[in-house]
Amino acid sequence: MDKKAIYKLSYGVFMLSTKAGDKVNGCITNTCMQVANSPTRIAIACINANYTCDLIKESGVFALSLLSEDCGYELIQHFGMQSGRNVDKFANLQLPTDVNGIPYLAWQTCAVISGKVLESIDLGSHTLFIAEVVDAVNLNDSEPLTYADYQNKVKPKKEAVQTDRKIVGWRCKICNYVYEGSELPAEFACPVCGHGPEDFEPVYA
Amino acid sequence: MDKKAIYKLSYGVFMLSTKAGDKVNGCITNTCMQVANSPTRIAIACINANYTCDLIKESGVFALSLLSEDCGYELIQHFGMQSGRNVDKFANLQLPTDVNGIPYLAWQTCAVISGKVLESIDLGSHTLFIAEVVDAVNLNDSEPLTYADYQNKVKPKKEAVQTDRKIVGWRCKICNYVYEGSELPAEFACPVCGHGPEDFEPVYA
Repeated sequence: MDKKAIYKLSYGVFMLSTKAGDKVNGCITNTCMQVANSPTRIAIACINANYTCDLIKESGVFALSLLSEDCGYELIQHFGMQSGRNVDKFANLQLPTDVNGIPYLAWQTCAVISGKVLESIDLGSHTLFIAEVVDAVNLNDSEPLTYADYQNKVKPKKEAVQTDRKIVGWRCKICNYVYEGSELPAEFACPVCGHGPEDFEPVYA
Repeated sequence: MDKKAIYKLSYGVFMLSTKAGDKVNGCITNTCMQVANSPTRIAIACINANYTCDLIKESGVFALSLLSEDCGYELIQHFGMQSGRNVDKFANLQLPTDVNGIPYLAWQTCAVISGKVLESIDLGSHTLFIAEVVDAVNLNDSEPLTYADYQNKVKPKKEAVQTDRKIVGWRCKICNYVYEGSELPAEFACPVCGHGPEDFEPVYA
């Protein structure tokens, strides 16, 4: 199996947020699609290790902010590269809330979809949530950010390969987890977000 | 609910094929995403009215040809705008077959993913197939066609609105079904493919 083939599936980029009691959290995801139009249903795949996934299981509702093509890397870093278990990502942010009382993004975002989970399917690394669309709002006329454009235009380019320095670890580019050691095992999967070696970059001494 | 918000979800464009006994068929779809990476799983939403959907339920296997950005409209028309119940879309085509013996596209295509269905969820208009990826082949270095590029670059532009001619029907742009009558009901759903009024164009006298 050539994973490069699977990586050619096309996606958008989203900030997925939820609120369970007083706990609010959100993460960055690329895996949402409409799966039925009568009635309107969407499906979202969420990494089981993510705090947002736990909270959606608890609350049964979520808001999906569809990032727009003018989205900056800082927004992705803020919601996608730190865990809500350690940081309150919504502290000091003044955000509007959707019909379920969940905060969504009011900037660098083109639309928001509010979902109510109908079915959760545990698929090992991820849970697939099948949801009723309870509301959908088109915020402006900006185009949605695609995952390909995120990779090619938004994400900073890798530094040139540095062969003269000692590698002391490997950092997961998805969640920033650091594996300590000079060689990352070929079948390694990030214990935090589940991504494989292709998503790790070297950490130099 | 503003459907324009839901239409901002991003997708690729695919030819989904299957083989059940001697019956071979394929259709065009935009709804496939990876839903787990350990183990590797994908999900595909397929319109229940489509013959391909029936055949996948029977065979439990499929090939997903990921169309590339150089894909022409004729290919979309051939697989997407006629029904395999009336036409053998694979007659006179010399195509390679995947590990399950299913033909896939060898041109205007950048990769092929072979799936084995693990779970089928009926969602009304569509069935969601959750599948194991049994093989994935990267065919070349071309970029995948996105649904947005299909709409903006591949699909021929609508003719200018003709207000001086009488409308006698409405044609579904997805499957070519024709509704006979001058006015399409606001809540109409295509009885063949399930799409709504926004996917119909007028037929003039």
